Amino acid sequence: MKELQKEIINFRDQRDWGQFHNPKDLAISLSLEASELLENFQWRSNEEAIEERIENIKDELADVLTYCLLLAHELNLDVEEVVKNKLQKNIRKYPVAESKGSRKKYNEL
Amino acid sequence: MKELQKEIINFRDQRDWGQFHNPKDLAISLSLEASELLENFQWRSNEEAIEERIENIKDELADVLTYCLLLAHELNLDVEEVVKNKLQKNIRKYPVAESKGSRKKYNEL
Amino acid sequence: MKELQKEIINFRDQRDWGQFHNPKDLAISLSLEASELLENFQWRSNEEAIEERIENIKDELADVLTYCLLLAHELNLDVEEVVKNKLQKNIRKYPVAESKGSRKKYNEL
Amino acid sequence: MKELQKEIINFRDQRDWGQFHNPKDLAISLSLEASELLENFQWRSNEEAIEERIENIKDELADVLTYCLLLAHELNLDVEEVVKNKLQKNIRKYPVAESKGSRKKYNEL
Repeated sequence: MKELQKEIINFRDQRDWGQFHNPKDLAISLSLEASELLENFQWRSNEEAIEERIENIKDELADVLTYCLLLAHELNLDVEEVVKNKLQKNIRKYPVAESKGSRKKYNEL
Repeated sequence: MKELQKEIINFRDQRDWGQFHNPKDLAISLSLEASELLENFQWRSNEEAIEERIENIKDELADVLTYCLLLAHELNLDVEEVVKNKLQKNIRKYPVAESKGSRKKYNEL
Repeated sequence: MKELQKEIINFRDQRDWGQFHNPKDLAISLSLEASELLENFQWRSNEEAIEERIENIKDELADVLTYCLLLAHELNLDVEEVVKNKLQKNIRKYPVAESKGSRKKYNEL
Repeated sequence: MKELQKEIINFRDQRDWGQFHNPKDLAISLSLEASELLENFQWRSNEEAIEERIENIKDELADVLTYCLLLAHELNLDVEEVVKNKLQKNIRKYPVAESKGSRKKYNEL
């Protein structure tokens, strides 16, 4: 993932786009790309979305991940570390015994 | 990232939450978590957001990435491959000569 | 709706919150409230959402509408006129004969 | 607003699009349209957004309002009543004396 992040930053810097990349606008972009991903599921069942839209789903998921990497870069965050730390928090927050099979617990993630 | 994805799926399966994980609802979750990330920047400048909200920004960025990994898992997608392929498309779509420093081009990503 | 918009602006001004209300942050708020509305449908069927969450759905729909009215106020727009004009565009864009029963057309709204 | 809501339902029914309109997909649509509205502010200051994008802002705000009216129709809700009730809640929740000029209070709306 770090190698890939470097390639993305390189792509950006060759085009001189870093000047637009402040965290607030990157967080807006991330949210917009997540919406474009979701758009593939609008008015469709899971099966229809996968059958009709899988190529676009791949591209939009890639855009979401790309903006995660760009935002992490601007904030000097290591994405893997950030995910690992949150997973540890969730393990403490949702003990297996109390959370098993419960949609209610899950909703509070 | 693959190791981390396995740990997340493991976390999920121990709590029997896979039953709720269809792609459409995961795409909704991804969009909701991206909004919660963005919420940290609402009514704040970049500087204020980083100073006051960096811990929450880390957690919400982690949630977005976690849902990316869960959705990719459900759709049998490799996240690194998906990002790499999109980057190749963008390199072809935005030749350096025509795109340099242009916000307009950038907006069409 | 105009009477209601005045009451909302009045509520805001009594609390001196107008200082935070620039259009960009209001557009972020609108998007965040739309996500909170959507959250009621996450992991739920239509029937479950209505049965379990109708009171929250009402409140979040109200928040979305409130931010529409606040944003319109900042931009000097009349919400009814704006909706009327867009409806006229849609009537021209989607002739009944070509659009009837088609999900495809609908998706491009 | 009620007259306008009738015209929108009429537009929809003439095209036979009501078959797609379940509340969950309408809530997704509402969220997507709010993102399209926000997109006009991405990489732009408030002044740039208004100068360069006001026509599109009007159209997207209209789309958000249209989906609010469609969703309210499906759920048998009166939009004005819903907004009025939430305003009353907010008046109780944020007493003027404690809320005046505070961004903190405002964030919890």
